[in-house]
Parts: sequence; structure tokens; C-alpha cells
Amino acid sequence: MTDYAAPLTDIRFLLNEVAGLADIARLPGCEEATPDLVDAVLDEAGKFAAGVLAPLNNVGDREGCRLEDGKVITPQGWTEAYKQFAEGGWVGLGLSPDYGGQGLPKCVATPVWEMWFSANTAFTMLPQLNTGESEAILLAAGDELKATYLEKLVTGEWGGTMNLTEPQAGSDLAAIRTRAEPQGDGSYRVTGQKIFISYGEHEITPNIVHLVLARLPDAPPGVKGISMFLVPKYLVNADGSLGAKNDLRCVGLEHKLGIHGSPTCAMSFGDNGGDSKGAAGWIVGEPNRGLEYMFIMMNEARFGVGVQGIGIGERAYQQALAFAKERVQGRDAVTGAVGQPIIRHPDVKRMLLSMRARIMAMRALALTAAGWFDIAHHSRDQAAADKARRYVDLLMPVVKGWCTETCQQICYDAIQIHGGMGFVEETGIAQHYRDARIITIYEGTTGIQANDLVGRKLLRENGATLRELIAEMRGVAAELAAAEGMQAMAARLDEDIAALERTLDWILANGRERMGAVLAGAVPFLHLLGTVCGGWQMARVALAVLKTGGDYGDGYKAALVELARFYLHGVGVQAQAHAAAIVGAGETAQAFALEL
Amino acid sequence: MTDYAAPLTDIRFLLNEVAGLADIARLPGCEEATPDLVDAVLDEAGKFAAGVLAPLNNVGDREGCRLEDGKVITPQGWTEAYKQFAEGGWVGLGLSPDYGGQGLPKCVATPVWEMWFSANTAFTMLPQLNTGESEAILLAAGDELKATYLEKLVTGEWGGTMNLTEPQAGSDLAAIRTRAEPQGDGSYRVTGQKIFISYGEHEITPNIVHLVLARLPDAPPGVKGISMFLVPKYLVNADGSLGAKNDLRCVGLEHKLGIHGSPTCAMSFGDNGGDSKGAAGWIVGEPNRGLEYMFIMMNEARFGVGVQGIGIGERAYQQALAFAKERVQGRDAVTGAVGQPIIRHPDVKRMLLSMRARIMAMRALALTAAGWFDIAHHSRDQAAADKARRYVDLLMPVVKGWCTETCQQICYDAIQIHGGMGFVEETGIAQHYRDARIITIYEGTTGIQANDLVGRKLLRENGATLRELIAEMRGVAAELAAAEGMQAMAARLDEDIAALERTLDWILANGRERMGAVLAGAVPFLHLLGTVCGGWQMARVALAVLKTGGDYGDGYKAALVELARFYLHGVGVQAQAHAAAIVGAGETAQAFALEL
Repeated sequence: MTDYAAPLTDIRFLLNEVAGLADIARLPGCEEATPDLVDAVLDEAGKFAAGVLAPLNNVGDREGCRLEDGKVITPQGWTEAYKQFAEGGWVGLGLSPDYGGQGLPKCVATPVWEMWFSANTAFTMLPQLNTGESEAILLAAGDELKATYLEKLVTGEWGGTMNLTEPQAGSDLAAIRTRAEPQGDGSYRVTGQKIFISYGEHEITPNIVHLVLARLPDAPPGVKGISMFLVPKYLVNADGSLGAKNDLRCVGLEHKLGIHGSPTCAMSFGDNGGDSKGAAGWIVGEPNRGLEYMFIMMNEARFGVGVQGIGIGERAYQQALAFAKERVQGRDAVTGAVGQPIIRHPDVKRMLLSMRARIMAMRALALTAAGWFDIAHHSRDQAAADKARRYVDLLMPVVKGWCTETCQQICYDAIQIHGGMGFVEETGIAQHYRDARIITIYEGTTGIQANDLVGRKLLRENGATLRELIAEMRGVAAELAAAEGMQAMAARLDEDIAALERTLDWILANGRERMGAVLAGAVPFLHLLGTVCGGWQMARVALAVLKTGGDYGDGYKAALVELARFYLHGVGVQAQAHAAAIVGAGETAQAFALEL
Repeated sequence: MTDYAAPLTDIRFLLNEVAGLADIARLPGCEEATPDLVDAVLDEAGKFAAGVLAPLNNVGDREGCRLEDGKVITPQGWTEAYKQFAEGGWVGLGLSPDYGGQGLPKCVATPVWEMWFSANTAFTMLPQLNTGESEAILLAAGDELKATYLEKLVTGEWGGTMNLTEPQAGSDLAAIRTRAEPQGDGSYRVTGQKIFISYGEHEITPNIVHLVLARLPDAPPGVKGISMFLVPKYLVNADGSLGAKNDLRCVGLEHKLGIHGSPTCAMSFGDNGGDSKGAAGWIVGEPNRGLEYMFIMMNEARFGVGVQGIGIGERAYQQALAFAKERVQGRDAVTGAVGQPIIRHPDVKRMLLSMRARIMAMRALALTAAGWFDIAHHSRDQAAADKARRYVDLLMPVVKGWCTETCQQICYDAIQIHGGMGFVEETGIAQHYRDARIITIYEGTTGIQANDLVGRKLLRENGATLRELIAEMRGVAAELAAAEGMQAMAARLDEDIAALERTLDWILANGRERMGAVLAGAVPFLHLLGTVCGGWQMARVALAVLKTGGDYGDGYKAALVELARFYLHGVGVQAQAHAAAIVGAGETAQAFALEL
């Protein structure tokens, strides 16, 4: 079964040499992120991930969850591990110190969350919900709700959920039917059915705070008539103690392809038929602005799912690498030597390199983007903060879409390296492949990320931010071209940037009149931008090796340069195909007028 | 849950207009394949697949198999369905009439097997084993073994298995340790452990005939010391009746990611510790030639797994298409209209088109290759037969490797189209994704196919057959260029063929001195050749539309031309990236001298 060791050297190199931790730690409000503290946090997180959460990952897969007499039973060890997790202060690592959080910068919190996801994604979805919900309440709720609920969520004492989806309203939240009736006393009665609610019910925490999207009686139709309500599992008395059980319950659990340890609940609000006429709820923020609040949080939520992609990919890579070093099979194709571990086979080596190169590229992008979050939120240099915000907005669908899609391919290769053993569940590698399959779907499918990227992020501003980013990429390519032995890498990067810019021009030229063709090419464009961003990041990694005097262990820095070379010559070349497909597939798909 | 309708129009078009059924039916020994008979066979197979096998597919997934008191219990309905299948004469559809087969050409049998795989791959593995084993016995066994076993296998009265893998001998059969001791009476005693034996034990047929690879006491080490033995579950009396139980048993079942309905057995031969000192077996053919016989059969076996890729892909596509036409979600991105089925979303349409285009390309290639099998075996025109054999040899690793890899992507897209419902097992689409995951592994991983392609098929003959095929592809591109409205498609095909030839040149130039780099690019090369073959086949499809006067229903032929256009502009463009990756990934991976 699969072990996990936190990739601390990779994380430290990227944080210090690529994402610019030292600069971020100088920002107001980020000063606590001293080198010593960050090191200690990463070390402790690595130990907790490897020692406590990782061994439970397969337990969760095998046991799954079950619904018994209205109670959801989570896998053995879940509750105890969560208790330790919350007591360690991990839930609020990146959340506001005003409500019990640690307030560390996002670029420090991000690699920590990556470790949790590597160790146990199904488990980590529980505290991850607290972070999203805390941000929503902080952003939109009134003082009373904040006072009652926020610290409980930030510290992880209570659990949180997001109740969005209904059977007829998945990607399309405009179709939500759940209703909320004002009671005249500031509270509401919420009635309706929600599905796909992660951790909608469990016994891990004494209370669960549901955020529920619902419609007021006089709400306009569609997306402009959706409000957000806070609906606790147990009502909270004035003194903060728990009161009566609210009228809501879990009516079923989904039987899923993966993340078995995470209960996916169908929730019913207000169906007990008695006097209550609904579950008691309180509105978050203003009426009919629920979706707007959701979308403000969305960048963060999508970023988190992108990091899941890195985490699951890293875990699958580690297991495949260990197997490839141990498993002896066949003879060396070049020397003819027998008794060789399969990592000596050129194809296996290629797969492992490709996995590692993509993981490093994704991690570099995610940590860089996390740094932009920090700059956007904390920098007093308005121009720098604005630019960081623009970059974050542009690239969030890429971090989400590209990292989650790339994770699938990495988990796929990890099975392939295991051969027949990869298809046997006891080996454990298939779990990562199954678990990963949801991440290109939830928090907005890849198609939705791509539409967001092309529609909202490019067309609305006529590609301005991407042009700015392309100029930045070109600068990195030029720097690379001036470095010894890196000209060929720089030339590859230049070619891929040119493909990106050419495609951007096509999208901008056609976006208005031929929206269908452009959107049919949106997912290939997301892959293109992700692939080129990966090359840009790996170029930055190679340049960082040249600049740093830091000691990261024997051969480590030289290997990073070779890894960057592999990425640009072996992975980045996909950019050309994606670019061709955007126009080719987009135009021919849209022209296809016949029945399928 | 997923329905299935046999894609009879697609199959008929490809058989008649692309694979040249009429010509094949004129070959000696193929005359029975008259249009009427072929139509009747396809119709009946389609009905049986849809009506009997398809509904059992999910039953098999949910129930799986279990081992109780040494007996393997297969899913409900399996035995009855198999009885009908065998009685219908389907097991021996393409096998010799001398032993109870129907003797139909491979190009007719192939689409029938595709339907079985679509309907129920886990089930179909059982009769598929009979065909492989029958071919082996026909090829190599002596008259006595043929007389005793062959008709039973061809008619499906008894089951068959292939016992190759051992824990230390997976892809590397040289490491086999199972032993066979001659008894002086023409029989042998076989002792050893085998793993991953599909249908190694079950109660569906009254007897099971195992083919077992093992070593004789004086065998040379490695691959040249492996012999093939026939080891029946029950000994067979002189009158053909069943005698004593042989000393072999199933000691465990694997818990697998997919194909749950197919028992994957760990088999123990000769461990009952009594007087027997082994399971009674009989040698097939000559000593130490077991692996050679295996490899002669291998083309057929690998072809069969490639067809599994088409079959599972077709099933997943049908379900995704049906869902996309039914599921209403979101508004039309172009017109803004609400209440639209998701097939109206450009990205969903692109995915569906891409699935269908790839399935048609794979099917066209497989049926064309099946036709070459027939020509190779039956044509009296020696030059034509030789050429067909060369093409079959060259392209079998492509049919196996490319069709199985492409199937994964199709099943992946099928889940993606379902959104959150795709992750819920009850929807049924996840089963195809899980079932499919084995086909890039068994009968030789994609890496092994690619090594075979580059090492045995290209380098050994200095690329001669591929050059011949490239010339043929160029002819098709030229014909396309001369057709009205198809110039752009032809230009795309030409570009992709050029990429293929350029890469072939690089492989031939570097194959000897830099074998490691070439083999690190072998899998990308397999993808390249598959992708270009797909384009070539879709070009043939488009040309066939222009030539035929056949009636295939309203709009059908026009849609095929558009599908070919989509393939060349939207899928074929991958060829350029694969070509770049062969050199780029191959060279940089091999140059990577550092520790991972």
C-alpha cells in the first residue's frame, strides 16, 4: 500500500526561489511568515499528512460511509484525525486571526493544503469546506451571524457545507427551486431538496453549518433571484450552546466512483411535516445576491480544487516511482542486462519524468498564483495589487481546469506503470485514479472553466491581461535565451508563446460573430494556456537554479534544469496541437449541422 | 442505466464501402460471406448483444464474482446467457468449420465481436479465450489433442484459458518458473502458481481447458526454454466423457478496478500434496517453442483487445449522447435561449463529435486490418497476400495500442459529459471507464506495443512496410485533394503524413546508436501512427461517400464527410505534437541521468 512523504524540498525551492516568499513576507499583514515559521509549519504539516492522514486514505476508500437511522457513519479514524487536525490549528491556517485563524499568507497555506490532499483528499474536503464557508460569511454576513458562527468554523469546531446543487440545477444554478420564507423575526423557513452535498451530514463535529442557496417568495427568476442562507443542523442558543435539531436531514448517500470516505449527501430541508414549515435559516448578506457572493468566493474555491489536482498527482507519482524502482521485469533495451527495475525501461522513465515535470509545473503555477492572491490582498502598492488581481482572475480557471485535467493523466500513467498490478485494488493506485475523477467536474466542469476563461476573462477585456502576461512570459524566454545551454529551451518556449498569441488573436477576431466556434475551442484553449503557463513556470524554475545560492541537496538543482528541459521539449510541444485544435475543432464542430 | 443499440449502419457502411467486403467474399474459403448472410449475422448479433448481453453488463459489475469452497460463482444470468451464446454458434463464428466453427471471414467476425464487447466485455472475455486457445491448438497441437479438445472449444462447450503470468513474470515471460515433468507416457505433471488468469475457474461450462506456459526439467533458461501445455480441469476419458478432477484449483480472486463480472484467478497447479505430484498435462507442439506459438497467436489476441477498445468506446459514446440529448441545463451560449439540452453547448458537442469521429476512425482501421487478415490467409494472389500480411504485422500494435488508449479518452469524455452524475455509480457510465482501464495493459501494455512497433516492425526492416503504407496514404490524400470541397482536409492529411515520415526518418537514423532515446519516444510514435492512420481512414470514408450509390438513410453520408472533416481538423492535429514529442521527450528523457 501507498506511503507518502511530503515533497518539502520541491515546495521550499518553489516558495523561496520562484514564488518569492521573502517579498510576500514583507507585505503588511504577512510579516509572521518568517523563514523559520514557514519551515516549521511545512515540517509539521508534512509529518501530520504522512503520519496521520495518509494511512487513513485507503481505509476511507474501503469502508466508505453509510447512512444508519439518519446518521452518517464516516470511516474509522476520521473523527479522531479531524480532532487532531482542528486542534493543531490547521483549519484556519490561512484564515483571519480575528476569528481564530493563523492568518498565514496563501502562498504558505497552499502547499500545506496540497499535502493534505495528497495524504487524503476525501478527508480534507471536510476542513476545506470550512475555509470556503468562512470566507463567505466574512465577506457577506452581518455581525450577528459572524459573532455566532465564524470562529466555530475557522477553528473547525463545527463543520460547514455548501448547498448549491439540486437535481435540475447542477452547472445551471439559475434553475434552483429551494425556497425561503421570511418569518418576520429576521429568520426564514427553508424548504427544498439539495443533492451532492459533501459532508452534508456526519457525527465528526457537534454541529454543521449549512450555507444554502434558495429563493425568496418575491425573487426574480433566474440567477438574479437567488439568496444565500445559513441553516445550522442544531439551532444555537443565545449563550452559544446548542439547541434544538433543525428541520433538515440527510435522505441518502451517493455510491460514487471515488472519494468514498467523503459522504455525498442528498439533503432535505423542511420536510418533517410538523409545525415548522421549514428549516430555520438566516439570510447571509442581502436578498438576491447569493450567486454574486458565490462567485466572489469561486476563485478561491476553484483554486483549492486545482491544488487537489497537484496533491493527488503527487501521491500517485510517488507510488508509481517507488514501484518502478522496486519492480524487476524484462531486460534493459539498450544494454540487454537482465534483472533491471522497470524504471530502466525508456518508456517507464519517460512517463515518470513527464509526471514529475507536470507536477512541478503545476505547483510552480499554483504557488505563483497564491503569491498574487497575497499581493492583491496585502500590497499597499496599488498598481502591483491591481496587476496581481488581474492575473489571479485570468488564471484561476487555468489553475482549476488545467491542474485537474493534468492530474487525470498523471494518475492514468501511474496505473500504467504498475501494469496488471495497477488494475488490482489492493495495490492502491487505482484509488487515486478514481478519487481524481471528480475534480474536473465539481466547482465547475472544465468546460465551464474554459467558458469563463474565454468569455469572461478574454473577450470582456479584449485580451488585455493575457497580452500583459504574454509580455511577461516573453521576458522570461529572453532571459532563458541568454543563459548558457538553455537556448533550445528558450526557442521552444518562444514557439509555444507564439502559438498562444496567435490563438488569442483568432479568438478576439471571431469571438463576437462566431461565438459558437470560439466556445467549441474553449477547452483546447484552456489546455493551451495551461501548457504554456507550465513551460513559462519551468523556465522560471531553470532560471531560479542559475540565480540561487541555496543548498537543496546533491544534484537537486541540476535535476530541476533537466526537468525543465523535459517539460519544454516533451510536454510543452502539446501547445501546438492545442492551438491547431482550437481553430480546427472549434470551426468544424460548430459547422456540424447534422444529427449525431 | 445504459441501453445499447448495435451501430449497424456504421458497420455496414465501413464493411461495404471501406473494408471491401465484396472483394473479400470472392476469396477462396470466404464465399459464404454473401451480402444476405452477412446482413443476417449482423442483425442477429445486434439483437443478441442488445437484448441478452447488454442488460447483464451492470449486473456483472455490481455482483462481481466470488470464490466459495473452491468454486467460482459468476454473476446471475452469466451461465444462461453463455449457453444461448454457444448454442447460437457465436463462439466459433470466425473459426474453422472443420471443428464446428462458422468459418466467416475476420472482417465479418470483427464487428460482431465489437458488439459483444460493447454489450458486455467482462462476459465476452470467456468466449474470446476460446478463440485464442482454438487458434493455438489448431496451429501447434498434435492430432490427438485436436481430436479431443478442439471441437469442444470451437463450439464453446468447454471453456478455455491462457495461463501465462506468474508473480515475477508479467510482461517478462522469460521469468516463468512453472515446471512440467515428463511421465514417460506422453503426459506431463505441471506444478506452479499462475496469476491474473481470466476465467481460470467457473461453473459455466462442464470443463475448462487450460493452456499453461511452463518449463521442462532440461529447458534452457529464458524465453527459449518455455513450452506450452494443455491442462484440463477434468481429465477426459477415451470416449470423450469427463473423468477425474485434475490437480489444479483457484486459490484466490483479484479485487479489480473493473470487469468485475470476469473472474481473475490465482491458479495453483499440482499442490494437492498427494501422489499426483502435479496436474496432468499434455505438451502442445514441440518442447521449448511455447513462446513462439504464443507470439504467432499474439497478433490475433492483440487485435481482439483493440476491438474491445472500439466496443467499450461505442457503448460509452451511446450513453453520453443519450444523456446530452436529454439533460437540460444552462442557456445556449450563442442565442441565449434557455431550456436547452446540453448537446447544444459547443463544448459538449465538440466532445461528442470527437468521440464519434475517433470511434469511426478506429473501426475503419480495424475492419480494414481484418480484411487484410482475410486476404493474407485466403488470397491466391501471393503478392497481395504478402502485402496484407506485412500490413497486418506492422499495424497490429497500433490497433491494439492506439484503439485501447483512445478508448480511455472516450470513456473519460463520456463521464465528463455527465457532469456530477458521471461520478455516481448508478448512472453506469463510470463502469465503462473502470472496465476500459485494463485494456491498455493486458495482452501487452502500450509500452510493449510501442517497443514491438519500433523495434521489431520498423528497425528490423528499416521501415520498408511503413514506407509502403505511407505511399498508400499519400495516394488517398491526393484523391481527396482532387475532390470538391475536400482540399483543406487533404492538406491536413498531407501535413500529418509528412510528420509521420519525418519521424520515421529520425527513428531509422537514430535507432541503432541511440536506442534508449528512440524507445523513450516509442509510445508517442505509436500515438502518431495511430492518429495518422485514423486520418487516412477517415479520408477513405469521405471518398467512399463520394463513390457509393448505397442508401444509408437521410443525411448519413453527409454527416460522415463532416465527421471526417472534424477528425482531420480537430483530432488529427495531435499528430504534430506527437511527432515533436517523439524527438523531444525521447532525447531529453534519455539524457536525464539524475535520480528521480
